[in-house]
Amino acid sequence: MTRASGLRVGIVGATGMVGRELIHALETRKFPVADIKPFSSGRSQKFIHFRGRPISAPEVDSRQLASCQLVVFVSSDEISKKLAPGLAQRGVWVIDDSSAFRLHPDVPLVIPEVNAAALGRDKRLIAGPNCTMTGLAVAGHPLHKIGRAFEARVASYQAVSGAGKAALEEFFSQARGLNKKLKIKNGRAPLLPIAKSSALPRAIAFNVIPQVGGFGADGYASEESKVAAELRKIWGAPNLAVSVTAVRVPVVRGHCLAAWLRFKRALSPGYARRLLAKAPGLKLCRDNDYPTPLSCSGLDPVFSGRVRRGASQDELCLWIVSDNLLKGAALNSVQIAEELVRRGWLKA
Amino acid sequence: MTRASGLRVGIVGATGMVGRELIHALETRKFPVADIKPFSSGRSQKFIHFRGRPISAPEVDSRQLASCQLVVFVSSDEISKKLAPGLAQRGVWVIDDSSAFRLHPDVPLVIPEVNAAALGRDKRLIAGPNCTMTGLAVAGHPLHKIGRAFEARVASYQAVSGAGKAALEEFFSQARGLNKKLKIKNGRAPLLPIAKSSALPRAIAFNVIPQVGGFGADGYASEESKVAAELRKIWGAPNLAVSVTAVRVPVVRGHCLAAWLRFKRALSPGYARRLLAKAPGLKLCRDNDYPTPLSCSGLDPVFSGRVRRGASQDELCLWIVSDNLLKGAALNSVQIAEELVRRGWLKA
Repeated sequence: MTRASGLRVGIVGATGMVGRELIHALETRKFPVADIKPFSSGRSQKFIHFRGRPISAPEVDSRQLASCQLVVFVSSDEISKKLAPGLAQRGVWVIDDSSAFRLHPDVPLVIPEVNAAALGRDKRLIAGPNCTMTGLAVAGHPLHKIGRAFEARVASYQAVSGAGKAALEEFFSQARGLNKKLKIKNGRAPLLPIAKSSALPRAIAFNVIPQVGGFGADGYASEESKVAAELRKIWGAPNLAVSVTAVRVPVVRGHCLAAWLRFKRALSPGYARRLLAKAPGLKLCRDNDYPTPLSCSGLDPVFSGRVRRGASQDELCLWIVSDNLLKGAALNSVQIAEELVRRGWLKA
Repeated sequence: MTRASGLRVGIVGATGMVGRELIHALETRKFPVADIKPFSSGRSQKFIHFRGRPISAPEVDSRQLASCQLVVFVSSDEISKKLAPGLAQRGVWVIDDSSAFRLHPDVPLVIPEVNAAALGRDKRLIAGPNCTMTGLAVAGHPLHKIGRAFEARVASYQAVSGAGKAALEEFFSQARGLNKKLKIKNGRAPLLPIAKSSALPRAIAFNVIPQVGGFGADGYASEESKVAAELRKIWGAPNLAVSVTAVRVPVVRGHCLAAWLRFKRALSPGYARRLLAKAPGLKLCRDNDYPTPLSCSGLDPVFSGRVRRGASQDELCLWIVSDNLLKGAALNSVQIAEELVRRGWLKA
C-alpha cells in the first residue's frame, strides 16, 4: 500500500454502528488519513468501505495497531482495557470511546468545545464521553462558566442505536411485528402485546424503558451514574450534584434531554439564550422551532431549545438533542484527533 | 325503554377514545346504570355498545341531558363550557373531564384517592384532572402528606392516545409508512424521512416531541402549566413550585413521568417506599420490576418505581406510569361517581 502524506489510523470496532459513522466522518471532514487499518471486534461483517474502496477488517492485531500514529477504539470496555494503555505507552495517540478510562485521573476526558485544555502532549490516552452526557456538557457549559452550576437534574430520551446493532435490529423486528396491531378497533386504543426482548431489558417498540445499564445500590442505573461522574469531570465541577433518570425510547438516532440546572449566580432565560447563541458546537433553536430526534439525525451540532426558568429563581430548564452516533461518539472522536493535528502533536 | 333500578347516565363524547373506555369501565365495575344516554360530539361513528346492545349516540341534546341524574363530559372544553354549568344548576351531577373548570374556585378538582374531601353535596359540577398530572398526584401524595413538598420537577413521556383519535391514526399511518425503512444498511443506523403531520405539531413515529399544547410567554407549554396549577389545587399546596417538560413519545397508551420532589421534611427512600407500598390506588414496583407503558396499559392503578434520592438530601426521584385513558381520564370519572353513590348524594 502506498503511503500518501497523512496518518496511519487504526480503528477498533470499525464494523460497528459507531465505527461506520467514524469512517464516514473521517472521509467527509477530510481528516489526513494515508492508511486506514480497520479491525472488527465481533462477529459482524468483515470489511468496510473507505474512499470508495473495500478494506477488510480482520480481528484485532496489536502489532498492526502499534504501527499506527492514531488508534480510535469504538468497541467494548474490555478490548479498550486490554489494548489501549499499552499502545499509548508506546507513543501511539489513542482515543477511546469506551467507558473504560473516562474517570481515570490521568486520562483526559474531552469534548473539544468544552475542555480541549485538558489535552496534554504526554497524555496519549484520551477518552471520549458517554453519548448521553455530551449534549448536556456542550449546551450547559456556557451557562456553567458564567453561573457556576451546583445542581443538575436530567431526564433522558435515548435512541436505540445507542445500545448497538443488536438492539436496533430487535427494535425494528418488534416494530414490524406489531404493524398489523396498529389500529383503532371499536373506537378503542389497542392494547399491544409485549414482544420478547434480549438485547434490551424490555420490549422497546411502542414502549419506553426506564433502565439503561444495571442498577447500583443507590438505585441509579450505571448510565445515570456515568452521566453524573463524567459531567463533573468535564466541567471541572467536583461538587456538582447530579440526578439523572435515563430512559430508552423507540427512536433510531438522537438522544434528547430535559435538563434543569441551578446556578450559584442566577441567569435570566434571555441572558442564557444570548450565551447559548454564540456557544461553539451548539445550535440554539427558537421556542417554536425546537429540535427533535428526527430533525437532528445525521447532523453534527448539539441542538438546544425551550430555554426557560425552572422551579426556582436560580434555575434554568432546557431541552437538548444530539445525534448519539455523531457528536455523542464518532464525530467527537474525530474532533479530538483534529485538535491533536492542529496542535502539531499528531503528525505523519 | 324500561327503567331498571339505577341511574340515568348521560355521556357527552361517548364515541371518542375516552368515551369508549368510560363505557367499558361503567360495565365492568357494575356501576348502577339503568339508562345510558350517549352523545357523540364529532363526526365519528354514531353508536356505541352497552351491555351488548348497540345504542345510538346522536348529537348532544341538552333537554335529554337534563333528564339524567349524572352526566359525564369527555369531549371538548367548548362543549363543557356551554352545557355543564347549566346542568349542574338544575341539580344534575356533572363530572367534567375537560379542562374548562378545573381551576375554577367553586369547582372541586378530584382524584378520589387524594382529595375526595373536596367533594360537596352542593357542588354538583366536579372536574377530573389532566391525564398527565394524575399519576404524579396519586404517587406523590402520600409523600407530600408527610414531607410537605415545596418543589417539583417533572419530565413526561406521554402516549399519543392522550392527544385523541386523529393523532393516534396519524401515528399509526406514519409508523406503517416507515416500515420498509427500518433496516440497517451498510452497517449504518438509518436516517428516517420526516413524515407530514397535522394532528400533532411534528411527526411522532420514531420521534419525540417536546411540545404538548401551545407555548405561553414564560416558555411553558399549556400542558406543562396545567400540570403545575392542577397539582397545586389537588394537593392544596398553593406555594408548590412546579417545573414540567411535557414530551409526546411514540407509545399508544400509558403516560410516564420522571419526577423529582423536594420536601420540607426530608424522607429517606426506604421510608418513602413504605409510604408508597400502602398508598391507595398505587402499585409500588421493585427496582428491577419497574413499570413501562406496555406493562401498564389497560390496568387501573398508578404504578411507581425507581424510588431513590434526588440531587439534594431533601429530594426524592421516582418513576410513575399510568394508563392515560383509564386512571388519567375514564376510570377517575367513574371513581368520582362511585364516591357520590357511596355517600348517598347520587341516587336514582
